[in-house]
Amino acid sequence: MPKRTSKPAAKSATSRKQEPKSACRVALIGFGTVGRAVAKILCENGGGSLKLTHICNRNVERKKQSWVPGDVIWTDDVQSVLNSDVEIVIELIGGLNPAGQIVRSALEAGKSVVTANKQLIARHGPELLQLASSKGCQIEFGASVAGGVPVLPALRTGLCGDRLHGIAGILNGTCNYILSRIENARIPFSEALEEAQARGYAEADASEDLDGGDARAKLAILALAGLHTQVAPESIRARTIRSVDAVDFDYAAELGCTIRQISRADLKGDTLFADVGPCVVPTDSPFGRVQRNLNLVLTSGQYGGDMAFLGAGAGGDPTAVAVVSDLMFVAQSLAGGGGKRDVASYVSTAGISTPTISSDFETPWYLRFFVRDQPGIVARLAQILATHRLNIDSLLQKPGFDKASLPFVITLEPCRDALLHPAVEEMSQLDFALRPCVCLPILR
Amino acid sequence: MPKRTSKPAAKSATSRKQEPKSACRVALIGFGTVGRAVAKILCENGGGSLKLTHICNRNVERKKQSWVPGDVIWTDDVQSVLNSDVEIVIELIGGLNPAGQIVRSALEAGKSVVTANKQLIARHGPELLQLASSKGCQIEFGASVAGGVPVLPALRTGLCGDRLHGIAGILNGTCNYILSRIENARIPFSEALEEAQARGYAEADASEDLDGGDARAKLAILALAGLHTQVAPESIRARTIRSVDAVDFDYAAELGCTIRQISRADLKGDTLFADVGPCVVPTDSPFGRVQRNLNLVLTSGQYGGDMAFLGAGAGGDPTAVAVVSDLMFVAQSLAGGGGKRDVASYVSTAGISTPTISSDFETPWYLRFFVRDQPGIVARLAQILATHRLNIDSLLQKPGFDKASLPFVITLEPCRDALLHPAVEEMSQLDFALRPCVCLPILR
Repeated sequence: MPKRTSKPAAKSATSRKQEPKSACRVALIGFGTVGRAVAKILCENGGGSLKLTHICNRNVERKKQSWVPGDVIWTDDVQSVLNSDVEIVIELIGGLNPAGQIVRSALEAGKSVVTANKQLIARHGPELLQLASSKGCQIEFGASVAGGVPVLPALRTGLCGDRLHGIAGILNGTCNYILSRIENARIPFSEALEEAQARGYAEADASEDLDGGDARAKLAILALAGLHTQVAPESIRARTIRSVDAVDFDYAAELGCTIRQISRADLKGDTLFADVGPCVVPTDSPFGRVQRNLNLVLTSGQYGGDMAFLGAGAGGDPTAVAVVSDLMFVAQSLAGGGGKRDVASYVSTAGISTPTISSDFETPWYLRFFVRDQPGIVARLAQILATHRLNIDSLLQKPGFDKASLPFVITLEPCRDALLHPAVEEMSQLDFALRPCVCLPILR
Repeated sequence: MPKRTSKPAAKSATSRKQEPKSACRVALIGFGTVGRAVAKILCENGGGSLKLTHICNRNVERKKQSWVPGDVIWTDDVQSVLNSDVEIVIELIGGLNPAGQIVRSALEAGKSVVTANKQLIARHGPELLQLASSKGCQIEFGASVAGGVPVLPALRTGLCGDRLHGIAGILNGTCNYILSRIENARIPFSEALEEAQARGYAEADASEDLDGGDARAKLAILALAGLHTQVAPESIRARTIRSVDAVDFDYAAELGCTIRQISRADLKGDTLFADVGPCVVPTDSPFGRVQRNLNLVLTSGQYGGDMAFLGAGAGGDPTAVAVVSDLMFVAQSLAGGGGKRDVASYVSTAGISTPTISSDFETPWYLRFFVRDQPGIVARLAQILATHRLNIDSLLQKPGFDKASLPFVITLEPCRDALLHPAVEEMSQLDFALRPCVCLPILR
């Protein structure tokens, strides 16, 4: 063993045995993949600053594990956990109910909470932060965005001295897996989805992922923690990736680009521009290079400029690292200021603004059409675009496609989203249009 | 203005005016580029949770700025600052002395310290952490590594739940600027250095940067914060980038690679493998893509896998963000637990190990020779390598060079550093060798 210097002082995950007295009593509610991984880390590192006392789950008998110490109480009675003397409750049930009620009850009882629940925090974060503050305890949610990538902790303690104005990210590993599979194998969307489901990267009903619901909840949390704005996730426009076709990667490649699901939020004055959905991004950009189910978050600040964070956005073990890191942070706070600390969380409840939400970004656009080929198509489309004062940047028509269902692409010079859409409506209703036009922002 | 929700509670940088009573009194010692940027952020964001009370510098009269509020005391008397009622001292003088004595005196007086001083923390970090802990105050040094990239805060509060075993980074912006300039413009090293100096990216005497002294101090700090190991920076092998020639980028390109100064530390059992110096890295790898003076840090953990952090590693404003973020973190701690918090810093003083330090990595190697061309050179070199049981992976000799000073390259299959060097010694002494062989690890 390496020599150890100095007397044991406190609190590192690896030196807990030295200080059993100050151990912080922790209950785990929800024993799924992440819950098991959290328990594993806590048990593998012995007792000490964090002492797992309860594991709570429905039908808990079938969940029991031999590697959990014998003095841990297994229960399916949430109330008994809330009535106990635990100091920190880990909520890993997910969803709004009953998780929300459990979190509120724990905070009401003066217990701090660590949660990975993105839907709950996206919808009720500010209210729960305020409840925690009023009860002299803490709520931490570092695992709710980007799994093990420590973006929220970095916002909390590393970038808080900056004034951020933009956050953008690849926040949904399922979408990124599917899109990067289509990119690399040029398989149809449906096949990529099936593959993701077979590998456990997508659920049977993947709507929440594919249609942007998951990512916009995470974006709302990032906007809360980094931009200090309160945003209802439903107010953020979410565009599905289901409309993206393998042929779009061929055309994107012509532009030196690929396609990713991007979540972005830009604060300009009183307006938060926010959008979630597939975007055309340069292949050699940070976004374009993110493969498989990784997550990437970029932040832009007035003083510090641009920062990038990349890592495993999901999975039991990486997410558990975020949960255990939050536990250690709360335990340190409790050991220090006890319940007296007012605000020790990602964001002060003061100074949270409620901006106007808009999806009206000004960007260049990628428009993809599927048409029944006939003379005059380009002329008709160009005429509609001209009427709406939209400038064509390029026309792409790759050879070799079936003329009865011909994909081709128009890219537009930067224009506001709101100006584009009436033109797109008109174009999609033309008699030769086989499907609605797919519009993707081009991010340079 | 956006609507503000909830009553002002505390401590965000943007809401300080609402709570003047709890403002934490802060003194700034050292008013250079970073010091000015810190003062600017503090002054631009008004009073509140952080109240700048003193600015201390030699010959302070010539430093005075009109944008600093009138109630800030300008002084060149450090002792008067230490005798005052400031709660946090920001040390931005740099170097071991007198900065070290000032930091110690501040901690002895029960004042918390925020510093960007990499040399001081690399050499005396554990001792200063322990002193702070014994006095019930804090020392934070988030700005000492990678400027504005919040790696240390992320290690402190976002990855502390993991068990990291490896850290690698591009930690010196000067070297990265020079190497990426040679890569892109194929100019000689001396020209790239002059350009860096002209643009303010390199000092007149850039030895500390070029020869690895700067990077290894930062690596020692990362090893302390992330791997919980105490490492004297001098015990880390540092290799200079001065030996890298433009032709090395031609040969690296043949291998699909480029060259970067990489600092890396791998903890294996009781041994910390550590090295700083130029390495051959794939052009399309995270390291290969880092251009200009940016910094990149990769961490590898048992549970969370690999994470990457990228951003501006230097400059007044980004570094100031790190300093102000630390200030806010300390101020929150003081507001919460007051001086009673034992360890709120990057790393507990318990559980810091002092491993054996080794540079004996096992990697593939790039060997570059400059020879006076004559028959039999390859045979002689191959024979020496065979004698030392080293396997050649490839022989590269690009056409078009002067035969009187011919550069060519041998790459070797993975072998331990210690086995390679006797062979290199022998080869460098051959009569046709015009310069010592340059050996660069190849990182895949």
